[in-house]
Amino acid sequence: MAELGEFGLIRRMIAALGGSRTPETGWAGEQQESAGATVVVGPGDDAAVLALPDGKVVTSTDLLLENRHFRRDWSTAHDIGRKAAARNFADIVAMGAQPSSLLVALGLPPELEVSWVDGLVAGFAEECAEVGAVVVGGDVSAADLIILGVTAFGDLQGRDPVLLSGARSGDVLAVSGRLGWAAAGFATLARGFRSPVQVVNAHRRPEPPYAQGPRAAALGATAMTDVSDGLIADVGHIAEASEVRIDIRAAALIAPPKLRDVGSALNVDPMSWILTGGDDYALVATFPNFASLPSEWTPIGMVNSGSGVRVDGVRWPDGGHEHFR
Amino acid sequence: MAELGEFGLIRRMIAALGGSRTPETGWAGEQQESAGATVVVGPGDDAAVLALPDGKVVTSTDLLLENRHFRRDWSTAHDIGRKAAARNFADIVAMGAQPSSLLVALGLPPELEVSWVDGLVAGFAEECAEVGAVVVGGDVSAADLIILGVTAFGDLQGRDPVLLSGARSGDVLAVSGRLGWAAAGFATLARGFRSPVQVVNAHRRPEPPYAQGPRAAALGATAMTDVSDGLIADVGHIAEASEVRIDIRAAALIAPPKLRDVGSALNVDPMSWILTGGDDYALVATFPNFASLPSEWTPIGMVNSGSGVRVDGVRWPDGGHEHFR
Repeated sequence: MAELGEFGLIRRMIAALGGSRTPETGWAGEQQESAGATVVVGPGDDAAVLALPDGKVVTSTDLLLENRHFRRDWSTAHDIGRKAAARNFADIVAMGAQPSSLLVALGLPPELEVSWVDGLVAGFAEECAEVGAVVVGGDVSAADLIILGVTAFGDLQGRDPVLLSGARSGDVLAVSGRLGWAAAGFATLARGFRSPVQVVNAHRRPEPPYAQGPRAAALGATAMTDVSDGLIADVGHIAEASEVRIDIRAAALIAPPKLRDVGSALNVDPMSWILTGGDDYALVATFPNFASLPSEWTPIGMVNSGSGVRVDGVRWPDGGHEHFR
Repeated sequence: MAELGEFGLIRRMIAALGGSRTPETGWAGEQQESAGATVVVGPGDDAAVLALPDGKVVTSTDLLLENRHFRRDWSTAHDIGRKAAARNFADIVAMGAQPSSLLVALGLPPELEVSWVDGLVAGFAEECAEVGAVVVGGDVSAADLIILGVTAFGDLQGRDPVLLSGARSGDVLAVSGRLGWAAAGFATLARGFRSPVQVVNAHRRPEPPYAQGPRAAALGATAMTDVSDGLIADVGHIAEASEVRIDIRAAALIAPPKLRDVGSALNVDPMSWILTGGDDYALVATFPNFASLPSEWTPIGMVNSGSGVRVDGVRWPDGGHEHFR
């Protein structure tokens, strides 16, 4: 990559997907429409400019660091690009918004092969296309390890955002999407295995239930978040912000046969993956009315007065993933 | 910081500036107004929500990496926070937009002192306050070195964005802000000196001419960018995108006495800092009418047909800072 140089690389990234810069390819050209925004200025200028249908923008950012959030020997560049986009889009849909676009700031080692960067960019673009969004810009720096700084944008389509703080006593707690699969995949890879492929792939490329975020908002969800730190930890964020107690029924969280098999092989209780594993980016939300829950949402508990999170009546200690500890 | 934990740190960051979460302190609370946006949802939820006066958002992102973009033994945490914000706000004003807000994704070593993070956050907030913007959210991860992923937002106040591609033959090239000062400061620090303080501080804490970005747009600037890679390199980006040649008159770029003194002491031609040094975040723009230039803008050249950048008629080789090379 050192041969190509910074600006050569940026030109290549824009050109790679520039043949048809549309939401289908996930790379924005000027004046392209994504599901949630019109791209007034796309990649290549000092900044991107987005026009927003309802005059508000939902935005979230995070960092993914090589050997902390991903490993090049465990995941392809393509998978890493998709996962980096997915993590951030999950935050957008957890507000009840429709993802519209992505900015990517890349720190890349000069000795990295250009084909790896091509794969990464293709991964970003594919995850964007999956959700109707586009890459609208970014930045490239040299770094010792690969660093991905990803910022996602979304549109509320006229709805109010669904916050952490809206859960009320009497609401039902429900989840949409998979729990524990990525954690089982991580445990499998960490023990040196490459299969079963279903759990390993769940770690490599999460599949957040994107459509369920805006849908939950439309159905009147009172609070919502994505499960990135683990179910207990993320439900705990809702409980804390809403000043309520949340009771989870373990019986509602039956481990699927595949997780039981992997748990037996690795001598791990699969329920620990389900309760504390992040990285599947399921959505968890509270709804005022049990009857309104569509089939994609599984009721797993209730909101009560008090504080904290209990599983089958037992207060759960800090069970999620927390950085620095 | 390991004692505080991720969520403890986030709470502390919000609380530190949360007593009066206003544009004056640079930290957003809910429903606060910044100069360019209303903060509907501030820090602490899955994503931030901004309401935008003219229905468009200008946004840019980049990474700052310890020991590449800053050094803890050269700059205080406070300076580093201010500079990280300034770099990104410079991209926003270079579009002709008014900065409104900032998202910060932090990668922090667990052994870092909490007081350092406090200083960094105060620096972000102060630079925001300088320009009428607010910190609306962010994210924290553990990392081996300090990594700052900063995303800035701005508002065009109904104007069209000023692109790289709008320069036309006959336009005058003008610059606002300092050139070469940060490069002289970097050279001074690199030789082990800590003074003169004016150039060292220019490296530590740039002072982009924020107000001149929206002003240039209002005055009809045809193209604009901020000088982050060096004057020649950044004017080259305008020349390339606009498909024009840009001729710079070296005589218009007189080295101030302080830079001449530092140049003499270090045996460096100060003109090399002025022509190729980045990190002051001056603004350079093209205007159709010489007569309309206000005093804050110094004419330094002309736009002609052709390609590339010339200084006093001599084609300048790639002179700016380019990563990976």
